[in-house]
Amino acid sequence: MNSAATIPGVKLYVWNLAPNPRRVTMFLAEKGLSMEMIEVGQPDLTLAAWYREKYPHALVPMLELADGTCIGEAMAICRYIEDLYPEPRLFGADPRERALVGMWESIAYSEGLIAVAEVFRNTHPAFAGRGVPGTSQAVPQIPQLAERGRARSELFFRKLDGQLTANAFIAGANFSVADITAFCTIDFARTGKIGIPEDCGNLRRWYGDIKQRPCAAVR
Amino acid sequence: MNSAATIPGVKLYVWNLAPNPRRVTMFLAEKGLSMEMIEVGQPDLTLAAWYREKYPHALVPMLELADGTCIGEAMAICRYIEDLYPEPRLFGADPRERALVGMWESIAYSEGLIAVAEVFRNTHPAFAGRGVPGTSQAVPQIPQLAERGRARSELFFRKLDGQLTANAFIAGANFSVADITAFCTIDFARTGKIGIPEDCGNLRRWYGDIKQRPCAAVR
Repeated sequence: MNSAATIPGVKLYVWNLAPNPRRVTMFLAEKGLSMEMIEVGQPDLTLAAWYREKYPHALVPMLELADGTCIGEAMAICRYIEDLYPEPRLFGADPRERALVGMWESIAYSEGLIAVAEVFRNTHPAFAGRGVPGTSQAVPQIPQLAERGRARSELFFRKLDGQLTANAFIAGANFSVADITAFCTIDFARTGKIGIPEDCGNLRRWYGDIKQRPCAAVR
Repeated sequence: MNSAATIPGVKLYVWNLAPNPRRVTMFLAEKGLSMEMIEVGQPDLTLAAWYREKYPHALVPMLELADGTCIGEAMAICRYIEDLYPEPRLFGADPRERALVGMWESIAYSEGLIAVAEVFRNTHPAFAGRGVPGTSQAVPQIPQLAERGRARSELFFRKLDGQLTANAFIAGANFSVADITAFCTIDFARTGKIGIPEDCGNLRRWYGDIKQRPCAAVR
């Protein structure tokens, strides 16, 4: 994406390995935009201490505006970008489409990404004692929650497969931010060895389609 | 709210006891709007069978448009209403304010409402075997998750208290949908006997302020 237009004066704090920053970097790439990015993940899979001090929510991604305002939460950042750079529309083009995109993006987050993250956080050895992000308090991993997350992930994949029976994309006829959250979830699930079920042909077709978009190559 | 303007042709499916439908009904009340509402909760704390068949996501709230389109997820519904009836602005008035509202609404949901719901779902006897909403599969309750949710709820209350040190409302100077999600979360927490910590004076002041708004009386 060498031709991407750079947004001046803002900084995006990311963690290359994490799914939430990727929701924003894919979004930017699909818009043909770029901005200064600062990697805050450490080799030991913690966030840099200076970053946790700067942004006590201690989560990624975070967008720092020119006036110093810190905007957290992936969808708040994406909506801010859509506000300033509306085309191509990734949150839908009219009220009904925006409602369907918002609905499916929310489902992808609540039923997909959270479930997959529960598996990751509650099994990965580097996150022992860090079962919840964004806090420095010790939070033990819960093996039952990882198991439940695995079962929920499969329910989510099957829900997407059903939705894609009659739709090219997750929220309907057009590519949207709902596809971005779903795609980041599925790629993240692979780190927990959770794959798309063999019999989910619609979801496999869709995954192959998204994988071919230039934005899918961006980390 | 007898003077509320009725939106014709749409139906809102709600469950009087649940926090997510209340995010929408408070939002409507604050806008001075109303619409046809259909209660789908049953005395045994399940969703009516006809509703689960009509809307297989089996979650509330759901907004049915005049053309039969079903819009789920509380914030997708609220944004649809804001799209059609922009004033008063409850998602922020300019890109920066919208970003802060989106950020804090997302924090209130992910760190507050989900944590409180984890306590409720994993302890209430009526939800034994139903640890996750929206599925008919048996999902055992996880006592450790309830305990963790209780600890997370307190972290969330303290985060809000800090944010309210210098702000009248959760996302800044103006009442917004972030206040609605936070308020519904705190009221829902009371069902799990989780109260605002004694020393959170800012949060207690804010809660008292919101409680006096007419929208807070709406279930």
